[in-house]
Amino acid sequence: MLNDADAELSRRLIERGIANRDATPAYLQELRGNYKGLGHTVALPADTAQVSDIIRLCAEKRVGVIPYGGGTGLVAGQVAPEGPVPLILSLEKMSAIRAVRAEEGTLDAEAGATIADIQRAAEAAGLLFPLSYGAQESARIGGALAVNSGGINVLRYGMTRDLCLGLEAVLPSGEILHGLKRLRKDNTGYDLRHLLIGSEGTLGVITAAALRLVARPARLATAFLAVEDPAAALTLLSLFRDQAAESISSFELLSGQSYAFLGATCPEVRLPFETAPEWSVLVELGTGPSLDPEAVLAETFEAALERGLVHDGRIAQSGQQRADFWQVREMIPEANRRIGAIASHDIALPLSEVAGYIAEATPALRALLPCRINVFGHLGDGNLHFNVFPPSGEGRDAYRHRTAEVTRLVHDMCVARGGTFSAEHGIGRAKAADLQRYGDPAKLAAMRAIKAALDPLGIMNPGAVLLTG
Amino acid sequence: MLNDADAELSRRLIERGIANRDATPAYLQELRGNYKGLGHTVALPADTAQVSDIIRLCAEKRVGVIPYGGGTGLVAGQVAPEGPVPLILSLEKMSAIRAVRAEEGTLDAEAGATIADIQRAAEAAGLLFPLSYGAQESARIGGALAVNSGGINVLRYGMTRDLCLGLEAVLPSGEILHGLKRLRKDNTGYDLRHLLIGSEGTLGVITAAALRLVARPARLATAFLAVEDPAAALTLLSLFRDQAAESISSFELLSGQSYAFLGATCPEVRLPFETAPEWSVLVELGTGPSLDPEAVLAETFEAALERGLVHDGRIAQSGQQRADFWQVREMIPEANRRIGAIASHDIALPLSEVAGYIAEATPALRALLPCRINVFGHLGDGNLHFNVFPPSGEGRDAYRHRTAEVTRLVHDMCVARGGTFSAEHGIGRAKAADLQRYGDPAKLAAMRAIKAALDPLGIMNPGAVLLTG
Repeated sequence: MLNDADAELSRRLIERGIANRDATPAYLQELRGNYKGLGHTVALPADTAQVSDIIRLCAEKRVGVIPYGGGTGLVAGQVAPEGPVPLILSLEKMSAIRAVRAEEGTLDAEAGATIADIQRAAEAAGLLFPLSYGAQESARIGGALAVNSGGINVLRYGMTRDLCLGLEAVLPSGEILHGLKRLRKDNTGYDLRHLLIGSEGTLGVITAAALRLVARPARLATAFLAVEDPAAALTLLSLFRDQAAESISSFELLSGQSYAFLGATCPEVRLPFETAPEWSVLVELGTGPSLDPEAVLAETFEAALERGLVHDGRIAQSGQQRADFWQVREMIPEANRRIGAIASHDIALPLSEVAGYIAEATPALRALLPCRINVFGHLGDGNLHFNVFPPSGEGRDAYRHRTAEVTRLVHDMCVARGGTFSAEHGIGRAKAADLQRYGDPAKLAAMRAIKAALDPLGIMNPGAVLLTG
Repeated sequence: MLNDADAELSRRLIERGIANRDATPAYLQELRGNYKGLGHTVALPADTAQVSDIIRLCAEKRVGVIPYGGGTGLVAGQVAPEGPVPLILSLEKMSAIRAVRAEEGTLDAEAGATIADIQRAAEAAGLLFPLSYGAQESARIGGALAVNSGGINVLRYGMTRDLCLGLEAVLPSGEILHGLKRLRKDNTGYDLRHLLIGSEGTLGVITAAALRLVARPARLATAFLAVEDPAAALTLLSLFRDQAAESISSFELLSGQSYAFLGATCPEVRLPFETAPEWSVLVELGTGPSLDPEAVLAETFEAALERGLVHDGRIAQSGQQRADFWQVREMIPEANRRIGAIASHDIALPLSEVAGYIAEATPALRALLPCRINVFGHLGDGNLHFNVFPPSGEGRDAYRHRTAEVTRLVHDMCVARGGTFSAEHGIGRAKAADLQRYGDPAKLAAMRAIKAALDPLGIMNPGAVLLTG
């Protein structure tokens, strides 16, 4: 059993020269407002040795530790609403970019560096750090690695884990894992890097990472294409793959509901179509200077028109128009917030199951309750944000009591088709019961064995990922 | 302490309807002839349930299990020369390709399917399974995943782990891990897939995998380019990246010694240059049908000539010539075997350290002993096969006693530059002492804790990866 973080712990931090402050509300809330965290002290280590000190101190005093990055996580991995009061360990002061090596396409960043800072450092070196999503100005790389976040470029460049060559971390014992390698190939024992990535702070604290940078596509081509339905969108994706192989950077789905919400709540967003299509995709191709992505996009558009896959489209004619197109996609979560969801979901399906799932789940939800459904997301990855809203003119409060029921339906139908109830957001505390429900028993048993082996006192992010007690 | 596999164990296998046979010499040797394995019984399960039965039986009887794939591993992971006699568990009868889904670019293969079988199944579906290396006709996917093998397409498509979406495996408890997912994104707890991949059969037996297929490049362009030195080769790689981004499929280094060995031992191989250059690269670009890789290759060749990076080159003019070019690369290991190495190495370095390493290690080795050095490999990945041979006219037997000393020098200098002593072959038994020597102490401690947690009896591939006793 763990103890509360107390004033004595704060004194000990000060004794050891570790900065700390009272936990302001910012550290105790999460974006969606569904959880309120416990905690009164935030430790602010200046370096990896101090992180190790903090972990050893918490082990000695049997106090839980919540690693805290940018606070942008969507599954309450960074806030503990119940249980003994934890120490919050914020990596915000460890935000240095220790090295950028343009000639080898790598960069070393401390855990507290924001995604946007890393993007800018890569850009200054003429390269691209392709991790990209709405929260990138606040989200920190340590948190992004802890949850293995996704975003709009996964189709081409992979998840956060795929961009990480090496990790430095403090294990629950306080030992420092010196794994800041920058090797493309390194088959030397169990891959602790991949084990720590996605473990959401329950097996240790990531303190720094060696990251992979890629060539910045010299030429981009971006378009909105209106399609008949999600099945047609997936056939269109195959057509693009045949034509452009790995030059496809993004392939995002938007529903008619996405446009309707944007129109109603974000008048500053320029919508690409006069009449919003029921289904559409935002596609982007990027190539080196010697190849012509606009020609490929135009040819594929034409071929898709002929085959009846696409019935309308807009190809961006300038950098400004490209930015406008992306703003449409990126403002959808904000529009959703302004409408107010009954339930939000982050599901993924095998590509061949996506269209069938949407066709099945939509009427099933409508039979369950009156609602509006905004389906959008990273279709190229099979990842949908399948979010459910009250009918027009009604607020979500009247439907709050239906949230669990809605989520159960969305997740059950997804898992039945070989899908997942958490594609890119992780488990945190919000989905720990789902993991217990849907997880493979052998996997859960192995996870518990690993957790007990590496963190026998259970101090690391207690209550996240694995249900306790 | 483990017991020997005995006649009683074989009887129990038969009772349970599990096929088995006497261990022929083929199961007890490895390609380089440095290790001779113990074992008299080979179990041949027909399905995953039988694998589970075998593991439970061995746990009950405290008998070690060696999972056996194609037998092509180069680090003695598949042969145990000492210790209690293990049971050999060959996956060769589980070789089905359970499903190919062209529309979503996935394939499910049982562990015993060979890499080449999987390549052919992908090709029949109009797609590419990009894992490719010399042993692909014999190597089986279960073994390839167990060691996380590499090959000639890693630069573009990643290692074996990067091609695996999901795993089915039997854990040391006998429990079946049902993880044959085919999702691009799935953040639901610790990534046991990545933990099992590369664990070389010490944490369980992989029985099947869901694999990622990619678009088959419609157009290829392939060239041999002669460069001044490895540093020029790496600058050339940057130039190609700027021009062609992810269209670069391969970027292989060959030394003058590579050509000399081929000329001396493999007269059937057509060499691309009349006079072998001291250093050269084999580069291949692949694109969709709408892009022109030959034009990019020709332009980049010209730009590199102007900048003095390249002084000669041959662009393949036909499919036959492309095949001839690749035969040059692929026959180097065979030429090396015919010459007979004192010591072979599979090292990787950060890209910016590669040239300095070669410049430093070469004279250091020559100062240590008279020798010829054949440096070749996957330069785009920083992965070199840095192999050391006796002087011309001498056999390796006279130098066998120097092997350990040579390897120590090669590995010490590599690790000092942030490199690894095992890039794509793994640890097995051949490098277990190296792992103990060079491994990060926190990493080794965590590995031992995980091994003890998941395999408390120590029955899975005992003696591989982690030194015992």
